[in-house]
Amino acid sequence: MIIDSNKIDTHNEILIQSHANKLVFLASEIGETENIVQKLIDFQIAIPSWALGTGGTRFGRFAGGGEPRSLEEKIEDVGLLHALNNASGAISLHIPWDIPTDYNAIKSLAAQHNLKFDAVNSNTFQDQANQEHSYKFGSLQNVNKAVRKQAVAHNIEVIQQGIALGSESLTVWLADGSSFPGQLNFRKAYQNTLESLEEIYAALPSNWKLFLEYKNAEPNFYSTTVADWGQSYSYVKKLGDKAKTLVDLGHHLPNANIEQIVSLLLMEDKLGGFHFNDSKYGDDDLTAGSLKPYQLFLIFNELVEGMDARGMNHAKDLGWMIDASHNIKDPLEDLLQSVEAIMIAYAQALLVDRKALEIAQNENDVVRAQEILQNAFRTDVRALVAEARLRSGAALNPVGLYRDLAVRNGLIAERGLKTMATGL
Amino acid sequence: MIIDSNKIDTHNEILIQSHANKLVFLASEIGETENIVQKLIDFQIAIPSWALGTGGTRFGRFAGGGEPRSLEEKIEDVGLLHALNNASGAISLHIPWDIPTDYNAIKSLAAQHNLKFDAVNSNTFQDQANQEHSYKFGSLQNVNKAVRKQAVAHNIEVIQQGIALGSESLTVWLADGSSFPGQLNFRKAYQNTLESLEEIYAALPSNWKLFLEYKNAEPNFYSTTVADWGQSYSYVKKLGDKAKTLVDLGHHLPNANIEQIVSLLLMEDKLGGFHFNDSKYGDDDLTAGSLKPYQLFLIFNELVEGMDARGMNHAKDLGWMIDASHNIKDPLEDLLQSVEAIMIAYAQALLVDRKALEIAQNENDVVRAQEILQNAFRTDVRALVAEARLRSGAALNPVGLYRDLAVRNGLIAERGLKTMATGL
Amino acid sequence: MIIDSNKIDTHNEILIQSHANKLVFLASEIGETENIVQKLIDFQIAIPSWALGTGGTRFGRFAGGGEPRSLEEKIEDVGLLHALNNASGAISLHIPWDIPTDYNAIKSLAAQHNLKFDAVNSNTFQDQANQEHSYKFGSLQNVNKAVRKQAVAHNIEVIQQGIALGSESLTVWLADGSSFPGQLNFRKAYQNTLESLEEIYAALPSNWKLFLEYKNAEPNFYSTTVADWGQSYSYVKKLGDKAKTLVDLGHHLPNANIEQIVSLLLMEDKLGGFHFNDSKYGDDDLTAGSLKPYQLFLIFNELVEGMDARGMNHAKDLGWMIDASHNIKDPLEDLLQSVEAIMIAYAQALLVDRKALEIAQNENDVVRAQEILQNAFRTDVRALVAEARLRSGAALNPVGLYRDLAVRNGLIAERGLKTMATGL
Amino acid sequence: MIIDSNKIDTHNEILIQSHANKLVFLASEIGETENIVQKLIDFQIAIPSWALGTGGTRFGRFAGGGEPRSLEEKIEDVGLLHALNNASGAISLHIPWDIPTDYNAIKSLAAQHNLKFDAVNSNTFQDQANQEHSYKFGSLQNVNKAVRKQAVAHNIEVIQQGIALGSESLTVWLADGSSFPGQLNFRKAYQNTLESLEEIYAALPSNWKLFLEYKNAEPNFYSTTVADWGQSYSYVKKLGDKAKTLVDLGHHLPNANIEQIVSLLLMEDKLGGFHFNDSKYGDDDLTAGSLKPYQLFLIFNELVEGMDARGMNHAKDLGWMIDASHNIKDPLEDLLQSVEAIMIAYAQALLVDRKALEIAQNENDVVRAQEILQNAFRTDVRALVAEARLRSGAALNPVGLYRDLAVRNGLIAERGLKTMATGL
Repeated sequence: MIIDSNKIDTHNEILIQSHANKLVFLASEIGETENIVQKLIDFQIAIPSWALGTGGTRFGRFAGGGEPRSLEEKIEDVGLLHALNNASGAISLHIPWDIPTDYNAIKSLAAQHNLKFDAVNSNTFQDQANQEHSYKFGSLQNVNKAVRKQAVAHNIEVIQQGIALGSESLTVWLADGSSFPGQLNFRKAYQNTLESLEEIYAALPSNWKLFLEYKNAEPNFYSTTVADWGQSYSYVKKLGDKAKTLVDLGHHLPNANIEQIVSLLLMEDKLGGFHFNDSKYGDDDLTAGSLKPYQLFLIFNELVEGMDARGMNHAKDLGWMIDASHNIKDPLEDLLQSVEAIMIAYAQALLVDRKALEIAQNENDVVRAQEILQNAFRTDVRALVAEARLRSGAALNPVGLYRDLAVRNGLIAERGLKTMATGL
Repeated sequence: MIIDSNKIDTHNEILIQSHANKLVFLASEIGETENIVQKLIDFQIAIPSWALGTGGTRFGRFAGGGEPRSLEEKIEDVGLLHALNNASGAISLHIPWDIPTDYNAIKSLAAQHNLKFDAVNSNTFQDQANQEHSYKFGSLQNVNKAVRKQAVAHNIEVIQQGIALGSESLTVWLADGSSFPGQLNFRKAYQNTLESLEEIYAALPSNWKLFLEYKNAEPNFYSTTVADWGQSYSYVKKLGDKAKTLVDLGHHLPNANIEQIVSLLLMEDKLGGFHFNDSKYGDDDLTAGSLKPYQLFLIFNELVEGMDARGMNHAKDLGWMIDASHNIKDPLEDLLQSVEAIMIAYAQALLVDRKALEIAQNENDVVRAQEILQNAFRTDVRALVAEARLRSGAALNPVGLYRDLAVRNGLIAERGLKTMATGL
Repeated sequence: MIIDSNKIDTHNEILIQSHANKLVFLASEIGETENIVQKLIDFQIAIPSWALGTGGTRFGRFAGGGEPRSLEEKIEDVGLLHALNNASGAISLHIPWDIPTDYNAIKSLAAQHNLKFDAVNSNTFQDQANQEHSYKFGSLQNVNKAVRKQAVAHNIEVIQQGIALGSESLTVWLADGSSFPGQLNFRKAYQNTLESLEEIYAALPSNWKLFLEYKNAEPNFYSTTVADWGQSYSYVKKLGDKAKTLVDLGHHLPNANIEQIVSLLLMEDKLGGFHFNDSKYGDDDLTAGSLKPYQLFLIFNELVEGMDARGMNHAKDLGWMIDASHNIKDPLEDLLQSVEAIMIAYAQALLVDRKALEIAQNENDVVRAQEILQNAFRTDVRALVAEARLRSGAALNPVGLYRDLAVRNGLIAERGLKTMATGL
Repeated sequence: MIIDSNKIDTHNEILIQSHANKLVFLASEIGETENIVQKLIDFQIAIPSWALGTGGTRFGRFAGGGEPRSLEEKIEDVGLLHALNNASGAISLHIPWDIPTDYNAIKSLAAQHNLKFDAVNSNTFQDQANQEHSYKFGSLQNVNKAVRKQAVAHNIEVIQQGIALGSESLTVWLADGSSFPGQLNFRKAYQNTLESLEEIYAALPSNWKLFLEYKNAEPNFYSTTVADWGQSYSYVKKLGDKAKTLVDLGHHLPNANIEQIVSLLLMEDKLGGFHFNDSKYGDDDLTAGSLKPYQLFLIFNELVEGMDARGMNHAKDLGWMIDASHNIKDPLEDLLQSVEAIMIAYAQALLVDRKALEIAQNENDVVRAQEILQNAFRTDVRALVAEARLRSGAALNPVGLYRDLAVRNGLIAERGLKTMATGL
């Protein structure tokens, strides 16, 4: 299923006058808009292949219909999103869930949809059929060297898959840890993990990055071997320049100040990228911006400030990816909402009056500093995000058009009602 | 110090054109604005007498200057706020910090500033000089009946003070609890507290309410005798119709869903009112809306829906009060920011399309339900709040005018640099 | 597989001298032991049928071997546990996972193992094949009356199953809630749930209890419709005397004081029973006592004190059940460890010098109160628990004997390596 | 007031038989005890000068009587503790609260009580009278260089004080941070702090250590500039070998795995020492071991394992200190309880069968690993701790003797009822 550009044009024509009014007003309020709109056009957020089907919890999974049955259909789904919002121009694959059978065909299909291959993800948290050793007691940390070797080899194979597709980064998320006191020697688990990571790192092409994700808990419930930003930082410092920390917004203890972590990792040149989602209790994997939109803005505020301070390219120098799971929403609608929320937060962060903020900070004018940030946050920037879509041929209202075109019904008609996406 | 209405007019004249542009645009976006503006004009948030000076933590206190040295000066400070925003038309007193010497004079002074006396607050968490029994081990819960009697008598005296001033509610916040396992028999502590509350309740005038506040922890660090909404609810159910639960936003365990609590207390006709503030870690007592503005909106969303469902008057049927502490901001600027944030959240909640939301809920259309709420939240309603101020003779930009008039310098000139507000 | 009593005797003979030494010493320290040993003999903890296989997380499941393939084999497994510890004399079934085909045969099998049927558990958090309506958006709370009716009918059917087996209680755990703001009208969800519960309650036999479990989060991640003890309490108060609150130790927000909740529910005659487990981050479902053994003791301290104050029978008047999930331990070993930890906590609580504690509390002697509790907790009571087993024909060291007899290997030989327990 | 050794002997004589029985039994259970007892004798825990008076919260402070009025009386108090338990042979001073007037006299007084001077603590979280610049907006992080210089100079002065007394370490705890988003540029705050720390580090004598404490929150409630172990680690790595991280048990986000942090810091040679206390909600500063004794044991389990792996001396190579605050206990009784709990946890950790644990870990035998740890924890080691006291001339039951001798009454008689300790 492909969304015809005529349909987008028709959709936009209906909304254009209302949109133009908003944009004119906004321009009158904030002055220059061109620079922001261009940055929004350039900003692309990768879609993980596993977010295209209905995720679930350990208690159950309530599948929708028309879920992608193959890598080809996953690419098609991301293509639909990108056609609607022109901000989802990349897909992030999970190996072994998404191993292509024909690389050229897959690359050609992605190119048709204007999609790149973002970071490839290894999986050593589940046992695959016919796998020699089990990861029940960890992978890169395992006390058994043979298990570690198997896990290292898998990661190296994932790099090979990524090279074949044109990816330039490997994301390593480890479920490794322990569920009971005494189970692990923390120091040896760390050292085994470091040794394994060094072997993987050695297999990275020179233009690649290794993103080491941290997570406070789950699926292990006593300790995790890469549990917080400090632990990830201590590993990537030892590994080398190509190793960076990846921040998943849902992987923190309650009340953690994530934006400060982001700022410090940027300062140390050790921030690699993001997994966006939102959460209230743990790694809830909810739609980005659905619960804590101000936190999302504050994170982008640090990103814009910190990347600019280092002369970094917002669109290219960090990895931007969604990592969410959608048990009760249509996955494609959910992803459209996540992308929209991220773009809004980015636009608001671009609006912050940095010179005034620096002055307020230097004067310890806390009231004024709050006003400067909240002024940006309270500004309704949705027209800017819509304008970026309009200019690049996407829809003014992606969810609206998705519904008007009954895309889900079309997918069900093509793929069936009882399909279930491969992977999680 | 009094802010002359001419100064407000002059201030407004400068800003009126820009304001009018925003308002016109907003009206074109949301349709009708009159009803919302009128509700905003009617909505008043009480200022606690103890928030007018610099609060602090157990580690230190960094006083500003010009803090009010007397109840009269506290009333004057609230009068300044009310002149600036016309939304702070009440003061909430703390006994024994704020006992008037001349009731008629105090009432007359308050009337000059258009201020009412909101809930009176008792204090059994500190020992006062010359107090016979100590509250070291609790007040209404105390194992010693003489201590309980003293605490009950104090509360009854506070009611008398309130009657003399025209208050119509008593807020009871208890520090009672324990810091170590074994210290308390929880059941007996509950029963003693209930018995004490019954005696206080019996002394309430027929038109009064008793607000029973709950708090998860601090200053006791193992248990608190009115620790959560369920405990407060179980007391107020037993006490009678005049007893209600008071919700302080900072008094919950991490990740609590406060808006659900609000909805259920309203359903049970047991919600009494609010102490507004914001927090990240515990009872941080930060400026309302400074950290979690979306949560504040979601709470108001439940309030508007639930109060309308019961036919309640938004402005009058619940108690609205700030309870914050300002160690690093000018207290008056901080209160202006808190009131503004509350008014914005209220205005956004009034904007929610309730019919559409009900339809989305009935269709389990989660995506649409989120869009409806976030559409209201993302709308920039500041012009509505400003218009409410403009129509009632207050300032379009209260913090701006406060600074332009150098009010703090004026207060320092009058009161001195080293003053320290009475009370906390 | 059945453990021959001769094997237990042989095992005990080897350990008896060492055990006797410990017991003699302990008796010399604490004085009377008979009363405590008898209470420990009488105390039985129900085993949930779903804990006999390897549980898992949403990320994966690492099955062991020899898992029970049928209700009969589940009963056999609990029989093994009970033979080893004589403290697991009941099984709690989950419908529809454990529907018997022949009630008399099942009852007879259970009787052979000296097992009773504890609370039956309904399941409206998953969709079963051929189910007319989905629980994707809740069951008893659902906006669609037909879904609610189906869920009510299921619960009534579970009661029927329980009656046929001799159970006397129904445990209702609801996944109902919402994952996004706006999804639910909290008040209507409450009212629908209450109405549904009233219909279920009406179907309870006169000698039955309905246990209403609460849970702060998961699988819904924004709100839960029976989210905390206060909400459960408000429902069971409205339902009637047979309705009680069930406390699962893992279902609370961080830092909740569970022992206080237990004390207050007992005071209100609204405590129904327990699901024992341990956790660090959320509903981790780890082995009881594996992470917070002092908390477990403090809970039993309240139970003993509160039940004695009401003249309740420790063994019979509340429901005692384990609810854990064992991804990396042999499930049967894990259950033996959980039962042991619970018995130790109970024995320690029985040791508390209640008169001295009451005096310390009345004197606000916090130091002494702590010493009294910690004296009981620091006493090594394992010999008391072992003695209770010895006297009732069970093993002095259940895990040791389980391993010596290579029970798991026997089960694998009987049932195969790749079996997977039905249910979760 | 001094406790005569005759009184201790008399006390011990009464208890000796009961104690001997326990010790004999314990020796029969665990085999060798001499090695453990000797390690317990050698282990000393420093007492902070500010814990000798009644601490409090921001809500109030309920002073006891007989609190030390001077540095001399604080030393006398620690001398009392050390006489009673022979495990508190050091005092940790806080500058400027404890500046000596006569160094030789103070050193001589300490020597009389067999006390050493442990780490000295600087204070840049409060403003002192006559201080030129305020720390309202931070000290080492301050945007104003003059403030930073003042704070650096203060720390250097504290080092000088420490040198004069024979201390060999400086503990830097910074309240620096921010309470509102926007207030700070996190990166610049980090860089200012690092630069300031480098200046302080440069002033350290060669045999000194600098302990950099971290804290998640309070008194700043949005961000803290040394907020977690990872941030402290990143500073001390840059500073050099003499800089180490100090772990205060109460300074973590909810559910943090502190024992893993301890293990990793030891591995990195960056663990400096501890501030012991216990807590449920935040930095509650309760008696060590009063709420989470198993966590305290797990931390010591890592300490013993990790220090042995590095060949470190348990007693000397890390800094051991209590940091608690006692609003409702007699401070001296509280400190005796804290020291006892720490010694018990240390003794239990020494009991762990490390070879068996290593085997269990290498076999992924999680059940066995748990049993090994819990076997040590459930063993009643109090007689070992008592024996260590007995052998070194201290009391078998320190709290008991303290009460028998009515020490507090003696102190009140000497110092008065209304004294209030200097400092917090």
